[in-house]
Amino acid sequence: MTLATLLYWTDLLAVAVFAISGALAAAEQKLDVLAFILFGTITGVGGGTLRDLLLQAGPVFWIADTRYLWVCIGVSMATWYLAPLLRSRVSVLVWADAAGLALFSVLGTAKALGAQAPVIVAVVMGVMSASFGSLIRDTLLNRSPVLLEPEIYVTAALLGAASYALLAGMPWLDDGAVLLLAMAGAFALRAAAIALDLRLPNYRR
Amino acid sequence: MTLATLLYWTDLLAVAVFAISGALAAAEQKLDVLAFILFGTITGVGGGTLRDLLLQAGPVFWIADTRYLWVCIGVSMATWYLAPLLRSRVSVLVWADAAGLALFSVLGTAKALGAQAPVIVAVVMGVMSASFGSLIRDTLLNRSPVLLEPEIYVTAALLGAASYALLAGMPWLDDGAVLLLAMAGAFALRAAAIALDLRLPNYRR
Amino acid sequence: MTLATLLYWTDLLAVAVFAISGALAAAEQKLDVLAFILFGTITGVGGGTLRDLLLQAGPVFWIADTRYLWVCIGVSMATWYLAPLLRSRVSVLVWADAAGLALFSVLGTAKALGAQAPVIVAVVMGVMSASFGSLIRDTLLNRSPVLLEPEIYVTAALLGAASYALLAGMPWLDDGAVLLLAMAGAFALRAAAIALDLRLPNYRR
Repeated sequence: MTLATLLYWTDLLAVAVFAISGALAAAEQKLDVLAFILFGTITGVGGGTLRDLLLQAGPVFWIADTRYLWVCIGVSMATWYLAPLLRSRVSVLVWADAAGLALFSVLGTAKALGAQAPVIVAVVMGVMSASFGSLIRDTLLNRSPVLLEPEIYVTAALLGAASYALLAGMPWLDDGAVLLLAMAGAFALRAAAIALDLRLPNYRR
Repeated sequence: MTLATLLYWTDLLAVAVFAISGALAAAEQKLDVLAFILFGTITGVGGGTLRDLLLQAGPVFWIADTRYLWVCIGVSMATWYLAPLLRSRVSVLVWADAAGLALFSVLGTAKALGAQAPVIVAVVMGVMSASFGSLIRDTLLNRSPVLLEPEIYVTAALLGAASYALLAGMPWLDDGAVLLLAMAGAFALRAAAIALDLRLPNYRR
Repeated sequence: MTLATLLYWTDLLAVAVFAISGALAAAEQKLDVLAFILFGTITGVGGGTLRDLLLQAGPVFWIADTRYLWVCIGVSMATWYLAPLLRSRVSVLVWADAAGLALFSVLGTAKALGAQAPVIVAVVMGVMSASFGSLIRDTLLNRSPVLLEPEIYVTAALLGAASYALLAGMPWLDDGAVLLLAMAGAFALRAAAIALDLRLPNYRR
């Protein structure tokens, strides 16, 4: 599998898990099936859309390739039917969000580096791709944004983005391996934060 | 009248009715005249602005043609003077919003199809043009977004967008007639939803 | 000093003062150091980012010149260490915001005029550059948007934008002098509004 193929399928997977988290947020609010699709789609493609608008390096990804939209619509409708079978909707939401965060932090950075963005810009794009979708989801639904909770969230996205930006292109490392490693690192940190309630020290002076 | 002319004047009308709804929302909050203009303009051009940014098919409409801005400013100031004469500001707001929704759902789809977007993308653009302005208006003013109310709202926009996308370009139908028909359908559904409190079944499992 | 140089350094200064206001807003909410950087950066570059996306006249400023990002990061971290030394964080926030408002209202207008935008569009861009950063900051942090407070805020931005747009390019006036004059005017009006609680008449009928 080439790196481009790996990136493409991981990207679809990231959109799908974020779409699940969006549809589950609509379920929490007892909305209708169209709202499931709406929030699934906004959460799924929101971060990448902002990234593509800012980078100005070609069309927005879901306009160029409509498969992303169909994935969002399909996953959101599946969530409508399957959510009642879940023991804990909130916990699936949190873990789907964590998976999307880990995948998008690295994918956003990779896309920006591919568009010749400077490293600091690529890291910002990664963090933004990973957090903007969930930010819109939570703001629109009047939930407290997961971004602002004291638990480590942006830090995990920063770990994924920065580790990929630093290691990618190093000649003795395989690009696909670096990609998976950075995603695993971001996910592990976010998972630890959820499980152990890790947090950075707050401003308290 | 050519289709292009019909589209242009309908577009100005849609911007104007959304601007009225924005200015009336400012009236509800007892804001000053500049806030009337601000919310009138944001609501009037918000949806179309997002559509144009995403489509990347030329300049944003109100930058290319400043008449749209002047319409927003003029309509908002007129609302400042005329709102006290209204029996029920809220009901005018709701109906102006419904008219804007119906017009923009079809116009946004038409603009996207004109920019060679795939049908599913064009439908998304139509729904987005129709709902984004009112979403910003309600979010900024801390009103409960009309988008999230259980009443049919996005469904009406979807009806307008999808019916136009499916019927436009069919050789035996007049494009102008399809345009007006799709708008009338979206408005009728939204009107029925307001009058009869129609709603899709909610998630309640 | 050429006008371009003056514009560049004033722009960096405007980004820095807005970044301070963003980081101080994070301090008010007792967030962690990464949130300081996040809100400092969003507030610092938010308005100019929207302006550049809408104008479509080249890359977004902080992607083309990463110094803006480093300024935001540096200023936000400095705020993390220095905020405890401040007597009144809220009052520094308000005045940093006022300085950013005055600078950006004029700089946004100047950039839009430089991109050959019509005068009304340039004024809108100035007002938007000046107010969008603080709007996102306040919305994300669940603070009441300073934009919506009855005190004069948008009016001051409008004064800066409109006076620059009208006076710039007049052959008998020095462009740098017009720039500083318009900024001083906007700042003076905003300062008077803060100190004297000036406001436009509200809608109250």
